[in-house]
Amino acid sequence: MRFAARVEVRLRPGIADPEGATIERALPALGFEDVSALATGRVFRFEVEAATEARARERAEALAGALLANPVLEEASVSVCSLEA
Amino acid sequence: MRFAARVEVRLRPGIADPEGATIERALPALGFEDVSALATGRVFRFEVEAATEARARERAEALAGALLANPVLEEASVSVCSLEA
Repeated sequence: MRFAARVEVRLRPGIADPEGATIERALPALGFEDVSALATGRVFRFEVEAATEARARERAEALAGALLANPVLEEASVSVCSLEA
Repeated sequence: MRFAARVEVRLRPGIADPEGATIERALPALGFEDVSALATGRVFRFEVEAATEARARERAEALAGALLANPVLEEASVSVCSLEA
């Protein structure tokens, strides 16, 4: 069965986010003084071929931990859903 | 009221994704031959101060369209939820 997986990689709390800080600093001058606490991250979407949803999640978590996130600086959250009818 | 907003920015269909293609090419050699169709994107999380959820969504969409996504190459999806009890 095919599953769609989505991995969101964020910086761990306390790790500096210079891109987010730069955007946030620019917001008031650009008319967005109502926006705060901006943080950036990366997202990876892919398909996994697996027998069960539990197995697909396991594989997506393995990929996230091994290749997509740097566990020293980042944390990953994984969601999986079936692509079959 | 405060709202949490999340903007996911993806490349439009048909726009080359060299980062995703590079990861996908490396996957079989790294033991992930069950993973395919990998695409990368960026995610921005922030807070919006607004009177209603509809207004917060409007502001998040304005920010996404003006500053976070390049509408020529990218499309953004916005989700908003209340941070109040």
